[in-house]
Amino acid sequence: MQAGDVELELQVGVAKAGKYATRESGDTLEMIERPNGGLSLVLVDGQRSGSAAKRISNLVARKAVSLLAEGVRDGAAARAAHDYLRTYRQGKVSAELHIVSLDLVTRTIVISRNSHCPVLVFHADSLQRLDAPSQAIGIHASTKPVITELRVAANTWVVAFTDGVLDAGHRLGSSLDVADLVASFIQEAEGDAPALADAILSRALELDQGRPQDDMSVLVLALLPDENIGGTRRMTVRFPVRPF
Amino acid sequence: MQAGDVELELQVGVAKAGKYATRESGDTLEMIERPNGGLSLVLVDGQRSGSAAKRISNLVARKAVSLLAEGVRDGAAARAAHDYLRTYRQGKVSAELHIVSLDLVTRTIVISRNSHCPVLVFHADSLQRLDAPSQAIGIHASTKPVITELRVAANTWVVAFTDGVLDAGHRLGSSLDVADLVASFIQEAEGDAPALADAILSRALELDQGRPQDDMSVLVLALLPDENIGGTRRMTVRFPVRPF
Repeated sequence: MQAGDVELELQVGVAKAGKYATRESGDTLEMIERPNGGLSLVLVDGQRSGSAAKRISNLVARKAVSLLAEGVRDGAAARAAHDYLRTYRQGKVSAELHIVSLDLVTRTIVISRNSHCPVLVFHADSLQRLDAPSQAIGIHASTKPVITELRVAANTWVVAFTDGVLDAGHRLGSSLDVADLVASFIQEAEGDAPALADAILSRALELDQGRPQDDMSVLVLALLPDENIGGTRRMTVRFPVRPF
Repeated sequence: MQAGDVELELQVGVAKAGKYATRESGDTLEMIERPNGGLSLVLVDGQRSGSAAKRISNLVARKAVSLLAEGVRDGAAARAAHDYLRTYRQGKVSAELHIVSLDLVTRTIVISRNSHCPVLVFHADSLQRLDAPSQAIGIHASTKPVITELRVAANTWVVAFTDGVLDAGHRLGSSLDVADLVASFIQEAEGDAPALADAILSRALELDQGRPQDDMSVLVLALLPDENIGGTRRMTVRFPVRPF
């Protein structure tokens, strides 16, 4: 049996928290089914925080997912989202953009970064840190994403996050080594992709003493050997609904 | 303290299975954040099954979510999805469409039906069966959705499903009373919204003896008293990835 014959399970976990004392997170995460198979996750961190940031991140995410839903390739969707934001806000407002896709046509995971935050990839106990310099979208001419393609293979974990996680604890003189946390989580088989997203967010919140200094979002995508999940697809969402 | 002052938790659970011996489900479920607050879930059952049905349901879902993401109201999005499909396929192909939204501007749950399947609403132990006659989209002129708006309130459960669930067991002379299953699940506090979606799908699969006679999708949205979830938003996805 070849590697490609193994049945796999895709797991996605997302955990988000807003900056302390703001009404909403300025980060937006959207997911869309790819028309030819697979799915794409779009994570956008709008400049600044609160509702101004939210409007920007929502605008960018919406543009990207609508193109991806039409079958536009990831790199073109990221470029279009940039052009759109730059035109709409005249190059005055930036956003950081991640697109993480499972493409079942090419049998690859496609990771597009327009962010100063690294994306971490773990495969069979080895870490690849995707941290090539890349520009935020919305400001400069001809900004393009840094794209990495990985072959679909069992025991692959992809971890993306926004700078509220990257910088957690800085104000208090501590810092979060996400790679270290992820490595021990995977090696000690502590749980699934949603549990890992939660563990990273919890640690980031802890380092900011429960008062996040910026919007925090964590996205984990994992391809694991199938544990008899059958043919069922599942999705869950949970969030707090504030009083009037 | 008034009802509106209580912190609530939104829970969404989706479970989907494809018709037996087809490569993919012809149902599509997409979720999108509403630009002014809240989220919308769009569930589409394309006519027939397999890849032809999938192309139709994907097209309709994409049109609806892209409009909802721009702030278009649910009824207008459903009408537009109808007009679009009818124009595109010249009135020859139909689809059933559900839109279930949590609208945080109006503080309502908005349920739009273009389906012969009922939507079940449970609130404080009483069942409301939303089963007013409504047309599938794509065929007739001026088709519109049947819309129900419910005030946001704790202990509200909304359950929508496609006809693979409605008709489960028919071929074998049995049938599934979803309302009965939901009522006992809620009364006996058996679990959360994802667990309820799973329970309904499992029972439907059982009645078809593990060989679903049609695509089956279940969507559960629940508003429950907050159980100390804090400010974190969470999403999870799981699905099988088949070999090449």
